Amino acid sequence: MPKSKLYNLNSQTVASATREWLLKRGVTITQIAELVIFLQKDYFPELTLEECELNVEAVLTKREVQNAVLTGIQLDILAEEGKLLPPLQEMIENDEGLYGCDEILALSIVNVYGSIGFTNFGYVDKLKPGILKQLNDKESSSCHTFLDDIVGAIAASASSRLAHRNQAERENRIEPPLD
Amino acid sequence: MPKSKLYNLNSQTVASATREWLLKRGVTITQIAELVIFLQKDYFPELTLEECELNVEAVLTKREVQNAVLTGIQLDILAEEGKLLPPLQEMIENDEGLYGCDEILALSIVNVYGSIGFTNFGYVDKLKPGILKQLNDKESSSCHTFLDDIVGAIAASASSRLAHRNQAERENRIEPPLD
Amino acid sequence: MPKSKLYNLNSQTVASATREWLLKRGVTITQIAELVIFLQKDYFPELTLEECELNVEAVLTKREVQNAVLTGIQLDILAEEGKLLPPLQEMIENDEGLYGCDEILALSIVNVYGSIGFTNFGYVDKLKPGILKQLNDKESSSCHTFLDDIVGAIAASASSRLAHRNQAERENRIEPPLD
Amino acid sequence: MPKSKLYNLNSQTVASATREWLLKRGVTITQIAELVIFLQKDYFPELTLEECELNVEAVLTKREVQNAVLTGIQLDILAEEGKLLPPLQEMIENDEGLYGCDEILALSIVNVYGSIGFTNFGYVDKLKPGILKQLNDKESSSCHTFLDDIVGAIAASASSRLAHRNQAERENRIEPPLD
Repeated sequence: MPKSKLYNLNSQTVASATREWLLKRGVTITQIAELVIFLQKDYFPELTLEECELNVEAVLTKREVQNAVLTGIQLDILAEEGKLLPPLQEMIENDEGLYGCDEILALSIVNVYGSIGFTNFGYVDKLKPGILKQLNDKESSSCHTFLDDIVGAIAASASSRLAHRNQAERENRIEPPLD
Repeated sequence: MPKSKLYNLNSQTVASATREWLLKRGVTITQIAELVIFLQKDYFPELTLEECELNVEAVLTKREVQNAVLTGIQLDILAEEGKLLPPLQEMIENDEGLYGCDEILALSIVNVYGSIGFTNFGYVDKLKPGILKQLNDKESSSCHTFLDDIVGAIAASASSRLAHRNQAERENRIEPPLD
Repeated sequence: MPKSKLYNLNSQTVASATREWLLKRGVTITQIAELVIFLQKDYFPELTLEECELNVEAVLTKREVQNAVLTGIQLDILAEEGKLLPPLQEMIENDEGLYGCDEILALSIVNVYGSIGFTNFGYVDKLKPGILKQLNDKESSSCHTFLDDIVGAIAASASSRLAHRNQAERENRIEPPLD
Repeated sequence: MPKSKLYNLNSQTVASATREWLLKRGVTITQIAELVIFLQKDYFPELTLEECELNVEAVLTKREVQNAVLTGIQLDILAEEGKLLPPLQEMIENDEGLYGCDEILALSIVNVYGSIGFTNFGYVDKLKPGILKQLNDKESSSCHTFLDDIVGAIAASASSRLAHRNQAERENRIEPPLD
C-alpha cells in the first residue's frame, strides 16, 4: 500500500506498547518472574524474585520479543471480538490443537536466547503453572491462545539468560579477570 | 473464552479457505509454480510447470502450511483496513524492516519440508521474481507484508519436495526395487 | 574436496543405518513408542503401543529425521572415544548446559511434523521418563548428549503425527467422504 | 559417561577456540565482513569494512554462535580425514543435497539476531560471493560442507545486528533521549 512518507519506527513506542499490552491482558512482570523461579529453583536455590524480574525485563527489551508479543496479543483480542474470518476465528477462539502459529511465535522468542530454552518452554507450556493456569481458564470470556505460549516463552528466555549470566559470574569467581 | 460445545475442526474447510484466500489476494497456484521453475530450472532443465503446480498443491495440503497462510493473510487484510492497534498497525502497514513475524510464519512453512529449503526461501525473498514483485509494489493500495514471504516459502517448500521426489525417482532408475 | 564421480545417495542405506545406529546405541522402537504413550495417554486412553510403534516407524522414514539421528549419534560416539577437539570434546562429554546444538538437531526433527510438537519435546526432555532416564545415567560410560534429545524429539514428532491422524479419523466418522 | 568432577566450562576458552578454528579453516573476520558489505551496501552506501568487522566480532561473542561454529568445523574436519561412519561420511564429504544439518546449525546462528536475517542467509548461501566461493571449490582437498553455511549465517547475523544498530542511531538523531 502507499507508504506514509513520514513513517519512522520509534522503538520506544514499540517497547512501551509491549509492556502496556501485557498488563492490559492481565500479565505482570512479577507473574512471569514467578514462572522463572518455578523453572530454576532446583538449580539456583538462592534465586530471588527480584533477580528474575530483572531478567524478564531484559528479555522484553528485545525487538524480536516485542514483535511476537504485540502480534500474538492482537490476534487474541481480535478473536475475542469475533473479528477474524472463519475458519481462523474458530481455530484461534477454540485454541485448536492442530493450530500451531501460537507455538511458532513463542519459539521466535525462545530462539533469541538460544536453543537451551526449548526444554523450559515445553515444560511450562505443558504444566501451566501460575499465571499460565489463569490464562488457560476455558471458562473465562477472554481468549489467550497466543498469550499463554508467549508468556511461557518469555519465562523460558529469561531462564536461559539467567543460565548464561550465572556461568559468567561463576567464572569470575574462579578466575577473576585481570584489570 | 467459553468454548463452543459443538466445535469440530473440519480440515476440508481449512484447506478450502487456504486456496480461496490465496486467490482472493491475487495469488494463483501457477504463479507460485513459476517461482519453483525459477528456483529449480538450473538443476532440472526438463522440469514442467505442471509438475511444479502439483508440488505446490501438495505443499498446500499440509495443515501447518494452511495455518500460516490464513494467519498471515488475515493480518495483511486487517492492516489494509487499518484495524490493527498502533504501533503494530504501522509496522505491518509499512513492512517495517525490524518486524520479523512475517519471516517467522514463512519459516514454519519451509520447515515442513526440512532445512534444505531455507536457502531457496531467502533467495526468492531477496530477488522478488514474478508474483513476488507484484505483491511488493509499494504503490499499490494492498498490504502484502505477510503474503509475499508466505508465497516465497511455499515455492521453497515445493522445491524441497521436488528434490526429495527426484532423488527417489533417480534411485529407482539405478536400482529398481525388488518386488 | 574432490568429489567421487560415482557418488549416488542411496536412501535405503541412510534409512537402514538410522535404524541400526539407534539399536546399537540401546534404543528400540518400542522404547520410543512408550514415550509416545506417556505423552498421549491422557488424550487417547485407548492408544495401543503397536499404534505408537507404527507412528515412530513413520517418523523414522523421513530423511530430515535420519540426518539428525546419524549426525547426533556420530558426535556422541566420537565424544565417547575422546576423538573430538577441545573444548568441544569437554562440552559434549559433559553435556554442558550452555551447549545447545543437541537441542537444535532435536528441533529439526520436531519441525517436520510442525510446531504442535514443541511442547511435548520440552516436556519429555525435562522429565526424562523411560528410556530417556537410562540415556541420561551420568554414571554410565556412554555419552548420549545428543541421543537423549533426539529420542525425545522422535517421540514428540510421533505424537504430532498421531494427533493429525486422529483428527482425520474423527472427521471421517462425523462426515464420511463421498465416493 | 562418568563426568569429570573438575569440569568447569571456561567461556574464554570456547571464544578463543572459535576464532582460531575459523582462521585455521581459512576464514578471516575481514572476509566475513566483506559478505556483510555485499549484503548491506545498497541500504547503507556509507558502510565501512571496519564497522562490518566490529559487527562480525560481536556476533562471534555469542555462545550459541560459538557452539555452532565449533560443531560444524569439527564435522568438516572429521569428514576430510574420513573418520565418520558411512553413510554419514559420504553425505558430508559430498555435501549431499538432501543432507540439511549444515543449514540447521546455520539457522541457529541466524536466529540469535532474529528472523530478519533469514533472507540474507539464503541469499548469500545461494549466490556464494567472496569467501563462500572459495569454501565451495569442489576441486579443493578440503571439506567445508558446514563451514560455508556457517560463514554465511555469521554474515547474515552481523547484517541483522547492523540494522538494529542503525535504527537506534537514526532514532537518536531524530529525537535525542532526555537526560
